[in-house]
Order: sequence, then C-alpha cells, then structure tokens
Amino acid sequence: MPQTQPNLSNPSSELSAQLKSLIARADEALVRSLPPADTAPVELHQAMRYAVLGGGKRLRPLLVYAAGHALGETGSRLDSPAVAVELIHAYSLVHDDLPAMDDDAMRRGRPTCHIVFGEAMAILAGDALQALAFELLAHDVDAGVSPARCVEMLRVLGRACGADGMAGGQALDLAAVGRRLTLGELEFMHACKTGALIRAAVQLGGLASDASPDELAALDRYAHAVGLAFQVRDDILDVEGESAVIGKTAGKDAAADKPTFPSIIGMEASRERLAGLTRDALEAIAPFGGRGSLLAELARFAAARLK
Amino acid sequence: MPQTQPNLSNPSSELSAQLKSLIARADEALVRSLPPADTAPVELHQAMRYAVLGGGKRLRPLLVYAAGHALGETGSRLDSPAVAVELIHAYSLVHDDLPAMDDDAMRRGRPTCHIVFGEAMAILAGDALQALAFELLAHDVDAGVSPARCVEMLRVLGRACGADGMAGGQALDLAAVGRRLTLGELEFMHACKTGALIRAAVQLGGLASDASPDELAALDRYAHAVGLAFQVRDDILDVEGESAVIGKTAGKDAAADKPTFPSIIGMEASRERLAGLTRDALEAIAPFGGRGSLLAELARFAAARLK
Repeated sequence: MPQTQPNLSNPSSELSAQLKSLIARADEALVRSLPPADTAPVELHQAMRYAVLGGGKRLRPLLVYAAGHALGETGSRLDSPAVAVELIHAYSLVHDDLPAMDDDAMRRGRPTCHIVFGEAMAILAGDALQALAFELLAHDVDAGVSPARCVEMLRVLGRACGADGMAGGQALDLAAVGRRLTLGELEFMHACKTGALIRAAVQLGGLASDASPDELAALDRYAHAVGLAFQVRDDILDVEGESAVIGKTAGKDAAADKPTFPSIIGMEASRERLAGLTRDALEAIAPFGGRGSLLAELARFAAARLK
Repeated sequence: MPQTQPNLSNPSSELSAQLKSLIARADEALVRSLPPADTAPVELHQAMRYAVLGGGKRLRPLLVYAAGHALGETGSRLDSPAVAVELIHAYSLVHDDLPAMDDDAMRRGRPTCHIVFGEAMAILAGDALQALAFELLAHDVDAGVSPARCVEMLRVLGRACGADGMAGGQALDLAAVGRRLTLGELEFMHACKTGALIRAAVQLGGLASDASPDELAALDRYAHAVGLAFQVRDDILDVEGESAVIGKTAGKDAAADKPTFPSIIGMEASRERLAGLTRDALEAIAPFGGRGSLLAELARFAAARLK
C-alpha cells in the first residue's frame, strides 16, 4: 500500500491521487448536504450553494479525513464533520467579503456572493450555512458516532467559530489594519482567525474516530503548527506569488497596510519559521507511523503550495 | 400553590410574578454566558453584550422554562436552552437591523448594534452569538441532560435557525416586500421567520425535561399556535398600537408596504384568528393540567400584549 508510506522529505505543491479523491468525496458530501436550488426559498438556497460549491482547496475537510485515517477510520462518520467545517469556512468567506468587511468583489475567479445575490441575501446565506453546519454535525450519531462524542464535537465546533475563535480573530484583524503588531499579536490573531477552525477540523476527525486523549493531543499539536504554517505561507505568497496563480491580487496585504509575517520579521525569517512549523507538525504525528501519511502530506502542502 | 392553577379565561397584558422572576433568571444566565466586556477582543465582546442585554420580552427563554414546568422540571438544565434561544433571537435582530436588511437605527429605545459598533462588528457579533448558542447548548449535558437528548436538542436548534427556519423566513420576507401575498404565503413566511424559533424554544424545554413523544407533540401544537398568534398580534399592534408603547414606529409595516394579517384579511378577521389560535394553544396543553399554567399565561400574553 504505497499510499500509506509517509514521505516526510519531499515537499510538494501538488496533492496525491488519494487526497484528490478525498476532495471529490467532500464535494459529493457537500452537494448532498446543501438545500436544493429549486425549492423555496430559492434565492437563499442558490446563494448558499454558490458560496460553497465554487471550488476551493477543501483543506479543512481533507484535514478531517486525514485525521480519521491516522486512527484507522475511513467510514461515513467522517463526512458530517468534513462538511460542517467547510460550510463554516464558506460562510466566513461570504461575510468577510461583504462591503462592510473586506469589500471583495472577486473570490476564486468569480464574483463574490453579495455581488451576485445582493448583500442581504449574502448575510442570510452565511447565517444559514453556519446553522446547517451544526445541524449536520448533530446528525453524525446516525453514522455511528456515540452521542457523547457528538456532543463533544459540537462543543469543539461552537467554540472554534465564536468569539474565542474565528469570529474573534476576524474582529482582531479588523482592529489591526494600519497598526503595527508584535509577532505575538500577529500569531494570536491568526491562531483565532484561521487556526481555530483548522484545529477544530483535525479534532473533529479525531473525535469521530474515537481517538484517545493522547492521540487528540498529538493531533492538536499538529493542527496548531499546520494552521500557522498555512498563514505564513499565505503571507509569503502575497509577496512573491503571481496573481494569476494565487487567484487574488499579489501584494494586496501590503497595499492594505495589513500586518504580515514578512512585514514584521522579514522574508528570510518567515521562511525559517515556515520550515520550523512544518517540522513541528511532522514530529507531532510521528506516533501514528504510516497511518499519518495524509496528515504529513497536508503539512508539506500547507508549506509548499503555490496558491 | 396558586401559581400552578391555570387561569384560562382572563387575558392579561401583564406577566405574573412567577414569569417575571423567570425573566430575571434568564437575564442572570445570559450575563453569565456572554464573554466579559473587558477581555480581548473587547469590541466584539461589548457588541455581543449590547445586543443581548438591552432588554426585550425574553419570550423565548420563558417558553423554555414554561415547557419545563409543564413536565415538572425546574432545574438548571433549562438554563442552557433558555440562553441559547435568546442568543439566536438577539443575533437575528442585529443582522435584521443592518443597512442591507431592514436598515433600522433604533431598537428597544436604543441605537441598534451597528449604529454603536459599526457594521462590520455588528455582523461579527451576530455570527459569534449564533456560535455561542450552539456551544452552550452542547454543554447542557453538564446539567444532567443525556448526551442523546442533547444531540436531539442541537439538531432542533440547528434546523430552526437555518434555511428551513429563521434564515429562510427572513429571505421570504425580503422577497415579499411590495408583493401581494396570499394568507397561506404570509403564514408560511411567519412560520419560518419567527415561528420556527418559538417552536424550537418549546421543544428544547420539553426535550431537556425528558418529555415523551406524545408530550412533545402536544407542546409543538401549542407552540405552533402561539408563534402565529404572536405575529398576528404584532400586525394588529402595528395598526392600532401607540409608537411610544410598542417601542417602534406604529404603521411602519404599512408604510414599508409589508404584507400583514390586517392588510390581507382585515382587522376583524385578524382578531378572530388571534382568538382561535389562543384557543388552539390552550386546548393543546390541557393534558398538562395545572402544570401548564405558565404556558397558558404566555399564550394569553402573546394575544393580549400591548407591546
């Protein structure tokens, strides 16, 4: 089974066939989970589908599946958490893109949700996607997760989305524009804004797979490092990436006077930090041996991706 | 115990001392549940507290407590669901008041959340309140609710908030402005927009109190009638109420060309519908006998309230 042999040395910007097939699995689960485009309220349903089904890396669902694989779990109980974290991610992008927030008209090469459906419908679509994520996750008992574990998973997701997690990080980000942050402040902001949901994705995969407390702790150490690595790479790409490849305007953060890793510690130190975080992530999952191969691949991908 | 004797005949616009004390209990639980105003991210926490702690009828928490009482449950396991439904209600008001939605600058005699904290922070405060509602509800197992019941409660709340519930109703409402609705369309819109959360509140109170399927069905019949009665009364108050008493501009719906019960079926038929719904509600809870007194009082209040 070559796909279970971890390759810890070769960074890659391309995903393996196994991860690509898991993206397809996540996409199918998302299509099944969203309300139909032709039932009332039609516009709301269409806006929700537009927000979720327009592509994207599906990093968070992949982390759910990869964490499950590390524990020998590959069954359908991973689908609800995989869908839930992607719905939350999609809703956060819809709200972040609103004129009152980042005011973005394009995302993933398409007009953003509020450009197509109007601001009111975009706000509601985001709200409904968040509710759907929790509703679906509460149905994971139907796939064999114990009710007690399911409650734990709902708690983890709730906390990751709220004032101590994603929404809180976005509030810190808004307050940071034009200010000079310390490295610690920048890392705390990212730990909330993107890190919390990435950690939740990995924890949900573990919880759905009956991970032990030690295994959950190892997974969390991994997720913490990968979440931050993902953001450091984002900041590096903003400086040296090509707009056409990364799918958004290169140099946008600098132009918007947003604090970034390169702007605070420089490019070379940012690259070193990225390498260190990737080592941390790989070290954390060493106890899983070959079963951690997908997690290892995602850690390398987070650090090497070109977009 | 005079407070357990239902009085089904005297409609009242004033709440009893027992319900007033339950409002105080809900307010205390809300204060405990919200993030502190002096920890980071400070502005987000303040906006969340402002949105929730600015008064309000607390009808939804009262319905949770009243449903519990009908089943002989008065313990702390009712507090999480009571808080959760009020957080959802508060977040929906914050988002509904946004310029892109109803564009309201005043609510309950105070400037609305986005007027005080800005649009971006109001969007985030709403988002974080929704997440907090689910997180807190998932903690109801700590108060003695079984994990299986807790999962059921989370499912009920998720469904009530989403595209088939509150968010869907708001989308239907947006699409209805300036259109002529049939009575059936109007009732469906309200059943989603306000009815779904009112039904969820009563179901959560029942589920937390280990209600049987028959008891849950009776509670739901009650909640369906009360939810609609509440809305019919709202529309009647918009026509004949005094702005100073109802706390918002009387005649606002008509001015905004919003379909209402009086505009579709006339004032007299609206009053008859209200009386019929109240009878339905009281009939549904007859099996609970004297223990249904608080539910009965709330049904009468929904029909007779002056604001």
